[in-house]
Amino acid sequence: MATIADIKRPVEAEWKQLERLQSECLRSENKLQQEVLTYISARSGKQLRPLLVLLSAKICNPVTDKTLRTAIALEMLHNASLVHDDVVDSADTRRGAPAVHIRWTNKVAVLAGDYMLAKVIGLVAEVRNTQILEIVSQLGRSLSSGELAQLHVGQSMWINEEQYNRIIELKTARLFQACAEAGAESAGCTPRQRKALCEYGRMLGLCFQIKDDIFDYSDLEEIGKPTMSDLSDGKVTLPLITALQRAPQPEAEQIKAKGERLKDIENAEEKARILEEIKSFVLRFQGDEYAVQRMLEYKQKAIEALSVFHDSDEKESLLYLLDYAINRVQ
Amino acid sequence: MATIADIKRPVEAEWKQLERLQSECLRSENKLQQEVLTYISARSGKQLRPLLVLLSAKICNPVTDKTLRTAIALEMLHNASLVHDDVVDSADTRRGAPAVHIRWTNKVAVLAGDYMLAKVIGLVAEVRNTQILEIVSQLGRSLSSGELAQLHVGQSMWINEEQYNRIIELKTARLFQACAEAGAESAGCTPRQRKALCEYGRMLGLCFQIKDDIFDYSDLEEIGKPTMSDLSDGKVTLPLITALQRAPQPEAEQIKAKGERLKDIENAEEKARILEEIKSFVLRFQGDEYAVQRMLEYKQKAIEALSVFHDSDEKESLLYLLDYAINRVQ
Repeated sequence: MATIADIKRPVEAEWKQLERLQSECLRSENKLQQEVLTYISARSGKQLRPLLVLLSAKICNPVTDKTLRTAIALEMLHNASLVHDDVVDSADTRRGAPAVHIRWTNKVAVLAGDYMLAKVIGLVAEVRNTQILEIVSQLGRSLSSGELAQLHVGQSMWINEEQYNRIIELKTARLFQACAEAGAESAGCTPRQRKALCEYGRMLGLCFQIKDDIFDYSDLEEIGKPTMSDLSDGKVTLPLITALQRAPQPEAEQIKAKGERLKDIENAEEKARILEEIKSFVLRFQGDEYAVQRMLEYKQKAIEALSVFHDSDEKESLLYLLDYAINRVQ
Repeated sequence: MATIADIKRPVEAEWKQLERLQSECLRSENKLQQEVLTYISARSGKQLRPLLVLLSAKICNPVTDKTLRTAIALEMLHNASLVHDDVVDSADTRRGAPAVHIRWTNKVAVLAGDYMLAKVIGLVAEVRNTQILEIVSQLGRSLSSGELAQLHVGQSMWINEEQYNRIIELKTARLFQACAEAGAESAGCTPRQRKALCEYGRMLGLCFQIKDDIFDYSDLEEIGKPTMSDLSDGKVTLPLITALQRAPQPEAEQIKAKGERLKDIENAEEKARILEEIKSFVLRFQGDEYAVQRMLEYKQKAIEALSVFHDSDEKESLLYLLDYAINRVQ
């Protein structure tokens, strides 16, 4: 499998410019704010989203200053939304380190997220492209709507496949789509190129999210993420949705009853036992395999979308990125 | 004293257009989101900020569609920041009704605020004016920085006058300044007009905030806001800062010790007694009178700023608005 370094190769020089501009953007006159922003930036992971922006721009035309600002803005919007999501979901860790609201407080996390959102407006203002502005605004609405939708259905945690699709569309697919679309737009793409990258980005995002959800039911010792964490948080994803639909009704009802009790169980051993039982249930009805199938369908659509482009290093990287999203082990 | 209706008169027709456009902007496909937005809008108070936008535009040139969208965007940014501030400050009520995080949950409040911030970007994108975009982005950063600064110094609640000035500058003055400046810009003002309205808006905001802080030490039975609520929340404002500076040091230290204990006292009677004692202290050293003095200085500067404009109904209204900010009883 191609590594992130391999995927980055066609935009190596542009990546260095991006990093320089990014560290300029982190400066703040408020000491606490500066601390929080630096903390988030130091734990910003693989930065797949700005990478997608750069590749989507360069597959059309040379990368411009507009591209760099767009990439930083979208990564910042993503990070701001993670900081707020962690408050909302009471998640303790993020990328292996204490979440901002744990390291500081909920208050600091809410306000630092707001500050970052305001910075996003400023960055996009500098791009001076109304279409990119519209993409970013639409994305901001989608991200908060996606989380809200999840809260709303959360009252009954047993969403169906349609509701699941709607949530991952708003929460993840739109973000990847926006990165690809705004990247292309920042480099002055043609309408045909924009449409293709929009589709590619959306499909990549769906693959990425479904892979994350499959991880939760994974048996791999080596994966870097905790398993069964979504369900412990009351989040039901595609593998379990599928198994519940395939199982005989009485058995499905039993599993649901157990799943609902999870949040009230304090005994760690008992909790682990029930989680293990639900996991076996999912594997027995091949809920995970169905999710893999869906993911591969989306992958195929992403590949087809890229067919409007001639072969190039950037196109190869975008294909590698798709493989990476699907085959990564963390 | 002029009423809000009097102040509104020169922009009455424009106000109707604004209300129509505003109710369009509140529509959302997510039911919960729609409910929250409608709840906030129904309790949106006197809407002084959009009124300031309209008057600042019309004192320069006829109001345009850009002006209306700018007014709605700034009011929405203000409301989003209030929704988040109430979460951050754990405030239970807002404008006499349960705060959003109380009526729903913290989660809903954080996400609804984010949704509104994203809407703000969309509205400003439609205005297609980079300067207005920059004003809004700068304002967003100021508002979150102001709250963060308040948290930061909150570790020692005893801020000095300089720190107080810095906080009200970021939290309130910048908002009024942005309304006046963006309003003027939306109507294609001259640089001289923009500068004048920028100064007027800032001074109006300072008056508005200091008046709010004086309310907290007010004896008036009829005022619509709870008194001594800032101090109960650990917020020290100009009247108390002044009294502490004027009092002999041992007495000031005693008052500080009592103020610090406030947050740990659960007995309501004891709490009320200490608050009453601190209030008498402030009045004895005329901390409230000093604050009034400062406010009147700012008022004078606001009036001077408007001197670049010829007499007009709009100018009269802006002067009335200043009187209103200073003399209002709630």
